[in-house]
Formats: sequence, structure tokens, C-alpha cells
Amino acid sequence: MPSALVLIADGTEEMEFTITYDTLVRAGVKTTSAFIPADASSFIRSISPPVAKGSRGINIMPDTYLDAAECGPDKHDLLVVPGGAIGAATMSSNSTVQKLVQDYIASGKYVGMICAGSLTAKTSKLARQPLTSHPSVRAELEEDFEYSDEPVVVSGNLVTSRGPGTTFPFALTLVELLCGKEKREQVRAPMVFPPGTPF
Amino acid sequence: MPSALVLIADGTEEMEFTITYDTLVRAGVKTTSAFIPADASSFIRSISPPVAKGSRGINIMPDTYLDAAECGPDKHDLLVVPGGAIGAATMSSNSTVQKLVQDYIASGKYVGMICAGSLTAKTSKLARQPLTSHPSVRAELEEDFEYSDEPVVVSGNLVTSRGPGTTFPFALTLVELLCGKEKREQVRAPMVFPPGTPF
Repeated sequence: MPSALVLIADGTEEMEFTITYDTLVRAGVKTTSAFIPADASSFIRSISPPVAKGSRGINIMPDTYLDAAECGPDKHDLLVVPGGAIGAATMSSNSTVQKLVQDYIASGKYVGMICAGSLTAKTSKLARQPLTSHPSVRAELEEDFEYSDEPVVVSGNLVTSRGPGTTFPFALTLVELLCGKEKREQVRAPMVFPPGTPF
Repeated sequence: MPSALVLIADGTEEMEFTITYDTLVRAGVKTTSAFIPADASSFIRSISPPVAKGSRGINIMPDTYLDAAECGPDKHDLLVVPGGAIGAATMSSNSTVQKLVQDYIASGKYVGMICAGSLTAKTSKLARQPLTSHPSVRAELEEDFEYSDEPVVVSGNLVTSRGPGTTFPFALTLVELLCGKEKREQVRAPMVFPPGTPF
């Protein structure tokens, strides 16, 4: 069974987090959410379980705290960095996250970034390659990457996407990469997308 | 500012809950989530705040417990009943929820039901009218309602929809009804739906 780690912080876009996590679970992917405190220096597990306040006020209890030893590419097949401006700022500036992103890519495991989460490709100093993001952070990325306006961009093991409106095709693409095209269709059908939906 | 109450229980489909709540907040709707314990007879506020375990394992902390005195149509403009088989079973069988649904409809306030949440239209004994739901509960509804396969069905003040894949158009329809067509577009644009998305 493939395994995925989905990051979450205060200010994470809760639709991007929830759609990705839920869709992976529907595909049979063992999925774990890991909380990143805003202040990395106070990496104290004082609240157990932790609580992340989403960008629109929904409080979500992550499964665990981010722990470098438990979160590496030897433990999971996919690392997901969701958006939400404040949550993505916390993740992209966190040195443990940056190291994990580099390690996942170097190990041939998948990394998914969506919305402002794509800023983590820059702070992790990933090689110049095709990438997309929320349009609001495009200016911060287009010099260092081959910026694309496609809803989902697959570049080797790096999968990027744009915002809440592209999270379903982002999550279904991750399912296809981890579990195959047939599983993607098995997961997609009972979600009952409107006729004409282009993913 | 319009006000909305979104119900949540153990087993609620967390995408349907989160997309609806988040989209309403983006439109400036004052949105509150209210938890319904599975056992209505043990309506004890022993856990504060409560926690709802979603259908795919995401733990969400609701804003409050369901309280008939605080949740009526004099307090909110919209009541939302999300899906998820187990969560919807809890809601549709809860007499407080049934009374609230009747009161909202009678008061000319909106009621939104999605996926298996539409079963609540039947248990609340709403009049025969156009309605949709997740296909998996169609057989339980098509005798009592004018069953439709449309992604979103607006019948007077009752708005019904089908599943996770129709939750964005469901939520945007609720925004349009509460806040107008212009607000719908203001909320929709920055979500960055893929070109060709039919909502």
C-alpha cells in the first residue's frame, strides 16, 4: 500500500488539505498529516494532539507533528505541501521541510505542491523545471522555474498545481501516479463530478 | 452579513463539509459549524470543544454543539446538511435537525443538502419537489421526490446536490443565493478552476 505524508500548519488552505488527504485515502493510500508549528524554534510538542487553524477558520487536528526521522522518503512515497498563504509561508521557510523536499526528489519519491505551497520548490532550491502555482505567487517563481498555467504540472517526481479549484485534478493525478490509471477512475466515479468536468 | 450553520458529525464527508464552509467564508458569510453526537439521547457537552472524525479519517473541531435555541432560522439564513453515509444517518435521524429543516423552509430561509445529506429531506417530511442526492441513496428518495440527476437542484429554498465532485457548484450556488451573482464570481475567480470547468 502506498503511503503519503500531507503537511499542515496554521493558515493552511483547508480545502486543498482536505481534498488531497481524502482523495488519497479513497485510493487506499496510507495517509498521515503532520503539523508544522509556525515558530520552528519552539518545536515543542506541548499540545497533543496539535490543532491547525485553516485559512478560513476550520480547525483540523493533524495526525502527528512533523518529525524528520518519521517523515523521510524511506517512510512515505509522497510528500504534499498544500497552499494557503500563511501556512505555505510556514512550510516553505522551514528547514526540515526543505530538506525533506530535497530528499524525496533525490530518492525518486513524489512531491506534490499546490497553490502557494509551490514556493517551497524555490526555498528548497529545486532545479529549474516546469512548475505552476497560485497566480498570486507567480512573480516569485517565474524566474527560477519554467512557469506554466496548466492546472496540474508533472515534472519528473514534482507535481504542482494552482488552487482550490485544481485540487481535485491534482489529487487524482497523485492517485494515478501512485496507484495507476484504473484506481484513478475507481476513485473519481463515485465523486459524481458534473458532466463536462475536464478532469 | 448573511449567516450560515453547517452541520457536522462523526462520519461526515470532510470534503463536502470543508468546501462548503470555506467557500461561504470566502463570500463573507458568517459561518458556524455545529456538532451532532451520534447518540442523540446522550446530548452531553462532555467534550469541549467536540471533535468530529470525518468519513476518511480527518478530525475536525466543530465551532459548537448543535443547540436548537441558537440554531434556528431567526439566527441564520442557511442550514447545510453535508453527506458521508454515517454522518448523514446521524443527522437525518436526529429530531432536532428534522425540526430545524422544517423551520428553515417554513421561514423562507435556505436549506442545503448534499450527497446522503439529502435523506434529511425525507426524514423531515418535506413536500414532494425536485431534489438530487448521491446516486447511492437515489432509491430511498425517488418515490417521495421529483428525483433529478442535475449537479445542483434549486427548489424554492431547498438546494440539493450530489457528492464531493459537485460541492464547489453547490457552495457557489449558495453564495449566489445569499450574496448575489457578482459575489459568486468574486469568490470563484481566485479558486483557479481549470479552463472548461462547467460551473
